[in-house]
Amino acid sequence: MNRLAITLVLAAAGLPPLAASAQDAPAPPAAAPPPAAPPAAAPMFQGTALAQGPWDSTTTLAPIRAEVLTRQLERPWGMAMLPEGGLLVTERVGRLRLIDADGHLDPEPIAGLPEIYAFGIAGLNGIALHPDFAENRLIYLAYSKQHPEIAGVSTLAVMRARWEAGSHALTGVEDIFIAGPWYGEMPLPDRCCGQGPAFGSYGGRLLFDADGYLFVTSGDRNWGEMVQRTDNHFGKVMRLNDDGSVPPGNPWVGREGAVPEAWSTGHRNPLGLAINPFTGELWSSEFGPRGGDEVNRILRGGNYGWMQVTQGQHYNDEPAGGVRGVDGFIDPVLAFGPPSLNPGNLAFYDGAMFPEWMGDLFLASFTQGLMRYDSDAVGQPVGEPEALLRDLGQRWRDVQVGPDGALYLLTDDAQGALVRIVRRD
Amino acid sequence: MNRLAITLVLAAAGLPPLAASAQDAPAPPAAAPPPAAPPAAAPMFQGTALAQGPWDSTTTLAPIRAEVLTRQLERPWGMAMLPEGGLLVTERVGRLRLIDADGHLDPEPIAGLPEIYAFGIAGLNGIALHPDFAENRLIYLAYSKQHPEIAGVSTLAVMRARWEAGSHALTGVEDIFIAGPWYGEMPLPDRCCGQGPAFGSYGGRLLFDADGYLFVTSGDRNWGEMVQRTDNHFGKVMRLNDDGSVPPGNPWVGREGAVPEAWSTGHRNPLGLAINPFTGELWSSEFGPRGGDEVNRILRGGNYGWMQVTQGQHYNDEPAGGVRGVDGFIDPVLAFGPPSLNPGNLAFYDGAMFPEWMGDLFLASFTQGLMRYDSDAVGQPVGEPEALLRDLGQRWRDVQVGPDGALYLLTDDAQGALVRIVRRD
Repeated sequence: MNRLAITLVLAAAGLPPLAASAQDAPAPPAAAPPPAAPPAAAPMFQGTALAQGPWDSTTTLAPIRAEVLTRQLERPWGMAMLPEGGLLVTERVGRLRLIDADGHLDPEPIAGLPEIYAFGIAGLNGIALHPDFAENRLIYLAYSKQHPEIAGVSTLAVMRARWEAGSHALTGVEDIFIAGPWYGEMPLPDRCCGQGPAFGSYGGRLLFDADGYLFVTSGDRNWGEMVQRTDNHFGKVMRLNDDGSVPPGNPWVGREGAVPEAWSTGHRNPLGLAINPFTGELWSSEFGPRGGDEVNRILRGGNYGWMQVTQGQHYNDEPAGGVRGVDGFIDPVLAFGPPSLNPGNLAFYDGAMFPEWMGDLFLASFTQGLMRYDSDAVGQPVGEPEALLRDLGQRWRDVQVGPDGALYLLTDDAQGALVRIVRRD
Repeated sequence: MNRLAITLVLAAAGLPPLAASAQDAPAPPAAAPPPAAPPAAAPMFQGTALAQGPWDSTTTLAPIRAEVLTRQLERPWGMAMLPEGGLLVTERVGRLRLIDADGHLDPEPIAGLPEIYAFGIAGLNGIALHPDFAENRLIYLAYSKQHPEIAGVSTLAVMRARWEAGSHALTGVEDIFIAGPWYGEMPLPDRCCGQGPAFGSYGGRLLFDADGYLFVTSGDRNWGEMVQRTDNHFGKVMRLNDDGSVPPGNPWVGREGAVPEAWSTGHRNPLGLAINPFTGELWSSEFGPRGGDEVNRILRGGNYGWMQVTQGQHYNDEPAGGVRGVDGFIDPVLAFGPPSLNPGNLAFYDGAMFPEWMGDLFLASFTQGLMRYDSDAVGQPVGEPEALLRDLGQRWRDVQVGPDGALYLLTDDAQGALVRIVRRD
């Protein structure tokens, strides 16, 4: 939904138009102008809509080809690789799609989703497969849930369901987690610093770790004052068992007045999750305020500072923290901007197709292409990143390493694409 | 057992005397000479045997008193704080002892231990209580196990048993883990670098993490060539479920020819385990070769280099690695020597008695007293350590923070002591 549409909806509801956050803004023009001499294969850039490609390029370490598998996805947000080949993709607007092992999009969405509050950047978000998916066929989806009675009030929820191979319907759908509190009732509380509307910053990325715990990111809903409080799920990363129950080893279990699902806090809008293969640590990409985007190592019980400490600026141009080394708060591994990077998901490369990338960090971004960081011997990104595919002008939402060692990417667009990066002959 | 006794045993077995490792050597003289003017309260130093104390001192941050609770322990190795007050202590020679909430040693050992191979530094080692010990009264002990048929052949084992409060006998004793392979049959294989006898370097420290996984350290048995192989338990840290089964999330699960219990490898003789309260990470102290003692962050699947890479020297004075930043190997957080530090256990301070020590790393040592490192905002030790109680000339084997916030220490001595450090008025 674009800014105009949001304004129209708000006007229809008798509400004043709200400043849209950067996440809702139209895609900025590509940082670099279109190349003077486009390659013969295909035009490199056509506004925000992606051409069919493929595009060949020679990166610092590897010759690559970027191939479009489909351009028929509406605001794709997350994907999950299936053991039988192919993948499931979520569309933020509220659809779950199947792409088969040959890369063909099944025209019929998978039915059975709960009602989803799809508005602004609210909607259907992350997807994860149960660690024993091959046997139990359980999938997990994060989504924005409409309050049963109050219009415009919503929260982050995680549902679980069974999906059989090739089926067009989910069964056994149930919510296993509903974040609290519900939020969005008008009038909104007084909040500082030009924070945006209540229909932003849900988080919603899902990831299972090797021990079978499910991590769930939860954003601050543009109400950062809530984040340093322990009695709510705003701006937290949560850890759950596969049935949504609370692992007894969570850091706040038994702490009075604290939500036991929390694993870490002090986040603004964490949109990406990945396991660092060197360290086994959970890492997250986080959408900060202006110039405050971050990549963090997510430590048990860690506090990442929002909204007391950040490297960025608030949307009303107030400086927001901008300090490091504050006692009690963990500094980011990487911080970006200004200008904002607008990060999507992140991934550590561990495939066979590109041995020269082994262990490298890939960070999807809306403004700087797909960023690759070299990694040192202990899994830390080093040096300046290499920007891949930036000339395509895409808002890269998700990046994952496929079982074939290719990189799979989703673009945040009304005609969103699934793109695969393979080694060029 | 002292070096003379070892030599006599070997002579009786018709074997040539072997070079004893530094661990078996008598306690070195204290690094500092006895103070010229001993304090009035008690003599500070009486050879290796500890006087009754107490000893008052003013450390950098806090005024402390060191009190002896008992000096009647023979080579105490590990301890576990009981929820009802008091603690259990292992004696390396093969006894399990109870000290009540008033600090009195029960004269009657707790019976029911399996046969223990107590020889050199082999014997009874670490102890841990089940996370639900208050309900199920399960305790875990690491020990050197005699091969059922071949004299002198042994391995590291972990047993589990039930112990009721105040009882003098264990019930339900069972081994839940036996390391492989058994080792020690004569003649020993050819090994490089002057490595010691087979009755050394068992590891044997135990620790449960917040998720209820049991970590077990295992030494290289003075056969370092085995450590970089994945088909054995030499020089590994293991992770087990509470019944000894293998957690499916262990890094080598499903890897052909690899022991699935392994969590990390490349260790020489890891003798300490603690959870860093800032990061949630597992840390370990490791007895290296000469000048190669280490403190490590133990990462899932990490390789700590032994015996390819170490900061120390072999016992035949060959340099042993001595390099950092080797691809594929994780550098230590701290490395010591030469001379050797001879580390015991380590602990991060998280008690209420000494707020000025919150988060600080304490490392028990045989030669440098109890070392305290300041910690920075992300739980890393910084600066030069402060050596506490060094003038007492003790070989400090274990250090733990009690529920009262006092530090509890064990000395490695034939008349071993349990010492408590409290705040001095």
